[in-house]
Amino acid sequence: MVLDQIQMADGISRVEIAQRTGLTPQTVSGIVRRLLDEGIVREDGASRGATGGKPRTTLRVDAGAGRAVGVHFDPVHLTCAVIDLLGRPLVVRRRPTPPDADPARIVAAMAELVFAVLAEAGLSRDEVLGLGLATPGPIERELGMIVAPPQLTHWARVPLQRMLSDLTGLPVTLDNDATAAAIGERWAGAGKGVANFAHFFFGTGIGGGLILNYQVYRGGSLNAGEFGHASLLPDGPECYCGNRGCLDRIANPSAIVAETRRRLAEGGQESMLSQSFARNPASVDHAAVRIAAAEGDPVAAAVIDEAAARVAVVATAIVNFIDIDLVILGGHGIQFVESRYVEVVRSALETRPLSRHIRVVEVAASPLGPNAAVVGSAALVLHRLYSPQLSALLAN
Amino acid sequence: MVLDQIQMADGISRVEIAQRTGLTPQTVSGIVRRLLDEGIVREDGASRGATGGKPRTTLRVDAGAGRAVGVHFDPVHLTCAVIDLLGRPLVVRRRPTPPDADPARIVAAMAELVFAVLAEAGLSRDEVLGLGLATPGPIERELGMIVAPPQLTHWARVPLQRMLSDLTGLPVTLDNDATAAAIGERWAGAGKGVANFAHFFFGTGIGGGLILNYQVYRGGSLNAGEFGHASLLPDGPECYCGNRGCLDRIANPSAIVAETRRRLAEGGQESMLSQSFARNPASVDHAAVRIAAAEGDPVAAAVIDEAAARVAVVATAIVNFIDIDLVILGGHGIQFVESRYVEVVRSALETRPLSRHIRVVEVAASPLGPNAAVVGSAALVLHRLYSPQLSALLAN
Repeated sequence: MVLDQIQMADGISRVEIAQRTGLTPQTVSGIVRRLLDEGIVREDGASRGATGGKPRTTLRVDAGAGRAVGVHFDPVHLTCAVIDLLGRPLVVRRRPTPPDADPARIVAAMAELVFAVLAEAGLSRDEVLGLGLATPGPIERELGMIVAPPQLTHWARVPLQRMLSDLTGLPVTLDNDATAAAIGERWAGAGKGVANFAHFFFGTGIGGGLILNYQVYRGGSLNAGEFGHASLLPDGPECYCGNRGCLDRIANPSAIVAETRRRLAEGGQESMLSQSFARNPASVDHAAVRIAAAEGDPVAAAVIDEAAARVAVVATAIVNFIDIDLVILGGHGIQFVESRYVEVVRSALETRPLSRHIRVVEVAASPLGPNAAVVGSAALVLHRLYSPQLSALLAN
Repeated sequence: MVLDQIQMADGISRVEIAQRTGLTPQTVSGIVRRLLDEGIVREDGASRGATGGKPRTTLRVDAGAGRAVGVHFDPVHLTCAVIDLLGRPLVVRRRPTPPDADPARIVAAMAELVFAVLAEAGLSRDEVLGLGLATPGPIERELGMIVAPPQLTHWARVPLQRMLSDLTGLPVTLDNDATAAAIGERWAGAGKGVANFAHFFFGTGIGGGLILNYQVYRGGSLNAGEFGHASLLPDGPECYCGNRGCLDRIANPSAIVAETRRRLAEGGQESMLSQSFARNPASVDHAAVRIAAAEGDPVAAAVIDEAAARVAVVATAIVNFIDIDLVILGGHGIQFVESRYVEVVRSALETRPLSRHIRVVEVAASPLGPNAAVVGSAALVLHRLYSPQLSALLAN
């Protein structure tokens, strides 16, 4: 909590931290002393408060005092980033995932990418705090494995965490990509300093993550945040999860593309998108639909807004159930159309949740854009080291 | 956490507590010493563990070492209970709420009822830890007031907490009835020892409460748990909340009664319920429908099962979003038909949530029955005094 306050503010004193957190000045001083000893925070001159009085020492995060590296693994790309203590990406690089899907070869490619990115950042292995790895879920964190991944059948029960740690010599923190993206928002994105938020992560599907009381909320079986499997149409199409009419089934990239092509095939007004469709239907892929919607194409825009309206129904339910302070929409799956999604969801949250008379929940697009998951993967390391842990507090 | 372990077990040693909580033996010993000093816990002989070895002192909660009193205020009844430290009700009494709705008179009636119940329990005011008050929400806990209660228009901005404290001389803890009921489950009901659960509270409407990491989760604006306002039919009837087709709108007592009467009016098979309806339609009220359903009346049973199926959709969404360990169904609104609701929701949770392959979430009817809210109101006092509070831990 103390580090959060220092990270958010552009210079803050111990007294201000105590005021904002409700912690006693003694507790704040003790924690600040540890942060200073560890070199994470530095004292940065003194300033008088607005009301005058004794000058107070200003504290700032020493952004360069620590770095973390992260890998986002998806079936199509490997992405790697180095971030500083403020969560800012220093270097980001992407490579195609080797297509043969042999785990040992892909882990070797991850390790190579990590070393290439560290070299580009001018850092040796000893200068990073650790390596975070974000993968499609579900995962078993205790075992460091992916469990039954929908598109990665070769990966079940592969000891991914140990393999990557052996090859890189770095401690590896493993988590699923949606959780990593939420953690990235908490450290470096729209969720900085927000106690409770829900993060919708748009990738090949629609995942989610919850930060409650500044911590990741994982749930009893570590499967919280499955916003994509809210059933919106009880008689809708079957989802791979076994339910019907799930958000992820009716508003994922394939559903958006199929619906756009269906409308284009029906004919109607000519447009650049309809011409492109007439020449080659396959050219109307998810990126093309999003780009066309961003440029105002009426068919694409209508389909995207309808997908956003489905997301809005789920966001409203989340607000009614969990009463979060903020909804963040992120991930490469909404690139170019972030503002359409934000507008539709915002308008729902202004008019539908029961608590809207008390306060309207905010909606934000992730400032991390398509880097949300990879920045999140590196932020896993910071979160493991620096987030408030009840067990650690009790142990001290 | 330590007190939870002692409360759940029928005798437990310090070593076992450390094993089950992951706390260090030193931390456990320190906390147990405080619980012993406060007289909440007692040492109860020694026993050898299953594996032999040094005998270990057994710890138990001293149920009689403390009592709390609670009042559940609803527009129809005032209910008051005294509970012991294990959450067991010693005396429960109910009276009609004075009908003129003058706040001062009703608060006086609450105070009278508290003193009558204490007298019946043979307790003086000094022998209770405090008074909990559960009211329809939304409330402002800081101010001790109800805010804009749907059926209690006279009550907006009445300083209820202070008035009741002045009249009884007891410290008053105020909360909304759905949250109080969830806290009651945590201390004395189906939620004992469960880290994460959702509680559906069936009263005049459908409310809810969340316990996450053993604590009440209230949300950023203290309005979490509004399970009743999940919108299930986007084009359904308008709800007072402003949304459409909400669970609370389509499955609350009035909706159940209206639907049952509609089907009975259409005719069909003769039954005791249809005869009663023919004699006097008004006799088919919510209690009559529930009793008939419990006795197997086909019309009533079908209507109840359909309402339960609506609840099951929301319970599935809650599991997908929050990944709780248990769903508890309670409150007087499902009295007599608890097992029908449990069966329908259980069958949904076995087949629909994404995480069902990892573990199936359990469903339980509240053992507190119609006393859920009043036991919860008294449990508010225990929860305030004894639940783990991050701020308290940091202060020590």
